[in-house]
Amino acid sequence: MQISKRVSEMIASPLRKFIPYAEIAKKKGIKVYHLNIGQPDLPTPKKILSAVKNFKEKVVPYTHSAGIIELRQAWADYFATVKIHLKPAEILITTGGSEAMLYSLLLMLNPGEEMMVFEPFYSNYKSLAKITGVQLVPVTVKVEENFSLPKNSEIEKKISPKTRAILIVNPNNPTGTVYPKKDLQRIALLAKKHGLWVLADETYREIVFENARPASLINFKTIEKQVILIDSVSKRLSFCGGRIGCLASKNPEVIANCLKLNQSRLASPTIEQKAVIQLLSDPTKYTDGLKREYHKRSEIVYSGLQKIPGAVCRKPQGAFYIIARLPIDDSEKFVRWMLERFSYRQETVMVAPAKDFYATPGKGTDEVRIAYVLNTTELKKAMMILRLGILEYQKQMPKQMKADLCKSFSAVK
Amino acid sequence: MQISKRVSEMIASPLRKFIPYAEIAKKKGIKVYHLNIGQPDLPTPKKILSAVKNFKEKVVPYTHSAGIIELRQAWADYFATVKIHLKPAEILITTGGSEAMLYSLLLMLNPGEEMMVFEPFYSNYKSLAKITGVQLVPVTVKVEENFSLPKNSEIEKKISPKTRAILIVNPNNPTGTVYPKKDLQRIALLAKKHGLWVLADETYREIVFENARPASLINFKTIEKQVILIDSVSKRLSFCGGRIGCLASKNPEVIANCLKLNQSRLASPTIEQKAVIQLLSDPTKYTDGLKREYHKRSEIVYSGLQKIPGAVCRKPQGAFYIIARLPIDDSEKFVRWMLERFSYRQETVMVAPAKDFYATPGKGTDEVRIAYVLNTTELKKAMMILRLGILEYQKQMPKQMKADLCKSFSAVK
Repeated sequence: MQISKRVSEMIASPLRKFIPYAEIAKKKGIKVYHLNIGQPDLPTPKKILSAVKNFKEKVVPYTHSAGIIELRQAWADYFATVKIHLKPAEILITTGGSEAMLYSLLLMLNPGEEMMVFEPFYSNYKSLAKITGVQLVPVTVKVEENFSLPKNSEIEKKISPKTRAILIVNPNNPTGTVYPKKDLQRIALLAKKHGLWVLADETYREIVFENARPASLINFKTIEKQVILIDSVSKRLSFCGGRIGCLASKNPEVIANCLKLNQSRLASPTIEQKAVIQLLSDPTKYTDGLKREYHKRSEIVYSGLQKIPGAVCRKPQGAFYIIARLPIDDSEKFVRWMLERFSYRQETVMVAPAKDFYATPGKGTDEVRIAYVLNTTELKKAMMILRLGILEYQKQMPKQMKADLCKSFSAVK
Repeated sequence: MQISKRVSEMIASPLRKFIPYAEIAKKKGIKVYHLNIGQPDLPTPKKILSAVKNFKEKVVPYTHSAGIIELRQAWADYFATVKIHLKPAEILITTGGSEAMLYSLLLMLNPGEEMMVFEPFYSNYKSLAKITGVQLVPVTVKVEENFSLPKNSEIEKKISPKTRAILIVNPNNPTGTVYPKKDLQRIALLAKKHGLWVLADETYREIVFENARPASLINFKTIEKQVILIDSVSKRLSFCGGRIGCLASKNPEVIANCLKLNQSRLASPTIEQKAVIQLLSDPTKYTDGLKREYHKRSEIVYSGLQKIPGAVCRKPQGAFYIIARLPIDDSEKFVRWMLERFSYRQETVMVAPAKDFYATPGKGTDEVRIAYVLNTTELKKAMMILRLGILEYQKQMPKQMKADLCKSFSAVK
């Protein structure tokens, strides 16, 4: 029996494929600091947990496929607090942000059509592209250039007759970049000029540092009917396991068509939809603390990386990720080595190799993504262990390779 | 901006598209008995609701993409009670049965390939086929023939070089049929002979009457690696809003590849996964009562239909649906008319037009699906009102049409 081409060509989650090595390490009694996956350690707000416990109905029924109307209203209220003006009818509840991503790809593109992405990018988009038959066309952004978006003339070189959409994740996973408004303005011009859909994945909107306020692409009037906005409470309210997200659009065609997709899976989980209503509409009390905490952590990771000779990274502006180039030959080998061979006082660190955050083969080989989802004490330790691990790892790298690496890194710095 | 062809070609849910008319009726003060949708009215088991309330963790994290291992074990334990022997590693938790259906289509077929379905069939498969680019090839089964599967030689006429899979929903939604073992044996032979995947949607397994025990296709040794089994607790445990289902297979390739699909949406809801573990592994105390209740209801609906001159239907053997041919010209018109024009003592009934349960254009025009999801008292009233409605509706049908209908129905009986 033959598995379909589309699924067999999918790659296993890069964030999860090294987990078996971590499990082996743990069996040997080694503590593993997990910096590999975006699972926040911060407690889910009590308001949500008590709403779950207070679920009063006798039957847990399907909700409306579009989501509970009170939740759609609450989301509209929340959006208004960040100056995004959407009606409840312009918002559909999805089962996590992931479902909103899948539906966006299905809505915007036919199989074989192209979506532009800035690499490195959130690797699940690769899987979703395989599922939907969409071609991803990568435009590389570089750590040395602060992961800034290239000039429009550069981006335009990648536009073909098959290009239908462009993806902007802001604040960015995995780079931690918050795009300045003028860059988004350029994207809007480009989208208008070429008639492209804009997929605005803004799930990390609330996690920004030093008063950064990410602009929303849906607020650019000239393209407002072209934008599909994705949001989620997973990270912002530390409620990943709740699976509550949304897809929003000012284009009634998008909503009417997306509703058919929503109907095909009947409904999102009822209890969680109800549970987030109250907090969602005015989350600042919770998110202010969240922001401060992640900011502190970002500084620990950033300064930890600065202490590693040859490491290259940029100060994160938002989300809870950083991409770092490390003085190593191959980050997949390194991640495995850290789990199989290295420990410091019975402790080691797991980060995510960055290769799979790129669509261009060969890119990102010496880069890793760090998710700072540990408390500051543990994070400090983890960064120290990472540094010691790299120094130890380098000792067993072939001599010539080390010399080459040193050269290339000093050229960068 | 152009919405993709695949999504624009999807039809809006036939089960939901007449809801606006029901809402207008309600605004006029008319009570609507909903027999149109499979949302059980039976209370969710207290064991599940208290497990929800007892959720103790401080963070609601992503679970493993494959599902919580204890839940996979519980599902294996449940399967063993119905003589299906599967290891936890052969079971992946999905966000409702719907997600398992979507993943099955993605796994088994490439775009443009064909899956055979016996029509009338659960209409969501149409949407899922559009999403995945799969062609559905319908083989019609008829109420006059007790919705029995045609001879293999008849079925084989529809097999083309592009055929990859065959769908068997057992117990059947929407017909209420439970297939005899010898018919499933025939399907197994056919699948073996032509190397077809078999999608065995057995979500209604526990809802069967008069000691019917539906055989599972996964128990036919000769095709066990070809079968993908879909299950769900939505109907069996009246937990539709929990969104917990599973996909099972004895083919390790299916599981390994499906896991990549699971990873693309990270995880199913955490709280509900935990909440169903305890009851799932031994649900008979709950399901025995459920079975009795639906059996009673099936008899009310069946005898109610018998009292309608010209109505044709078969006694349901399982699930909680019945397909009935009614002495009317067009069931879509009729459903709308019942909501807009008819009421008896300020009450009316909503059923689902059957047209959209067929893939062949023109089929099912005079048929409806009734979901018996009301208590016996209400159901008796609803069936009486349906009968009165039909009699009244017939009065405004053109004379010739009525004469033709009478002729065709007396030929059937």
